[in-house]
Amino acid sequence: LSRLLRRLLSARRSLEICLFAFSSPQLGRAVQLLHRRGVRVRVVTDAQYMALNGSQIGLLRHAGIPVRHDQEDGFMHHKFAIVDKKMLITGSLNWTTQAIQNNRENVLIVEDAEYVKPFLAEFERIWEEYNPTNYTFF
Amino acid sequence: LSRLLRRLLSARRSLEICLFAFSSPQLGRAVQLLHRRGVRVRVVTDAQYMALNGSQIGLLRHAGIPVRHDQEDGFMHHKFAIVDKKMLITGSLNWTTQAIQNNRENVLIVEDAEYVKPFLAEFERIWEEYNPTNYTFF
Repeated sequence: LSRLLRRLLSARRSLEICLFAFSSPQLGRAVQLLHRRGVRVRVVTDAQYMALNGSQIGLLRHAGIPVRHDQEDGFMHHKFAIVDKKMLITGSLNWTTQAIQNNRENVLIVEDAEYVKPFLAEFERIWEEYNPTNYTFF
Repeated sequence: LSRLLRRLLSARRSLEICLFAFSSPQLGRAVQLLHRRGVRVRVVTDAQYMALNGSQIGLLRHAGIPVRHDQEDGFMHHKFAIVDKKMLITGSLNWTTQAIQNNRENVLIVEDAEYVKPFLAEFERIWEEYNPTNYTFF
C-alpha cells in the first residue's frame, strides 16, 4: 500500500483510474489530495460494484472528481491507473482493504510507452463510451 | 481468446498457472492437451472459487495435473500464467467464459525477464506454501 501510494502521489498533471472496485479509504484520500493539488483526475468504474460497502466513488464525486461507469451486465473488470500519461499501474489488485490486507495479489508498475499507450487508449475509449450523454434510459 | 490460446499452446516444456477462477472449457482443454503432450503443467487456484459453476479444476486433476490451493479466508486473486519460464501472461482476466465474453478486461503478454522472474518466484513461493503436507486440519 505504501509503495502504491508513493507512485500515485507522484502525479503532477493527470491521473486516469479504471477500477472494478474502489473502497480503500487511504487510496481514496490520496486521489482526493491529488485532485485538490490540481491534478486532472478521471475515474471509470463498474456500475454494479460502485455501491459496495465503503465504496469511495460517492466521496470522489462529492469532491468534484468526474466518474463514469458502464451500463452493461458484464463487469468493467480492469484494475489500472495511469500517472501523468507515462506510468502504468496494473495487476490483479482492486483498491479495497480486503484485497490489500488479505488476498494474494500482484501490481505491475510499467513506464515503457509500448505498454502504457494501449492502456491509455483503452481508457479514452471507455471514457467516451461511458459518457452519460450516451446513456439509454428506455 | 484465440490469441490467448495461441500463446498457451506454444508451451513446449512448462506451464505455471495461477488463477483465481478457471471455468473456460476451451482454456481447460488447451491445458489438458499440453499436459498430454508432456508439458509440465502446475496449477494454483483459490479454495473458495475452485468449485464455481463449470470449474475446470476437477477435470484438470482428473487428467493428472497437479493443482494446489490456499487454505486462507483471503482470495488467491492472481490471474497469471508462465509459459516455458519465459513468457508471462497476466492481467485482469480470470479464465471464465463470462470474463472472456462479457467483461472489459486486459491481458498483458511480457517476455522481459525483469517482469517474468518475480512472477515465477511468486509462483514457486505459493506452490511450496500450498503444499498439501502443510495443510492443517485442526
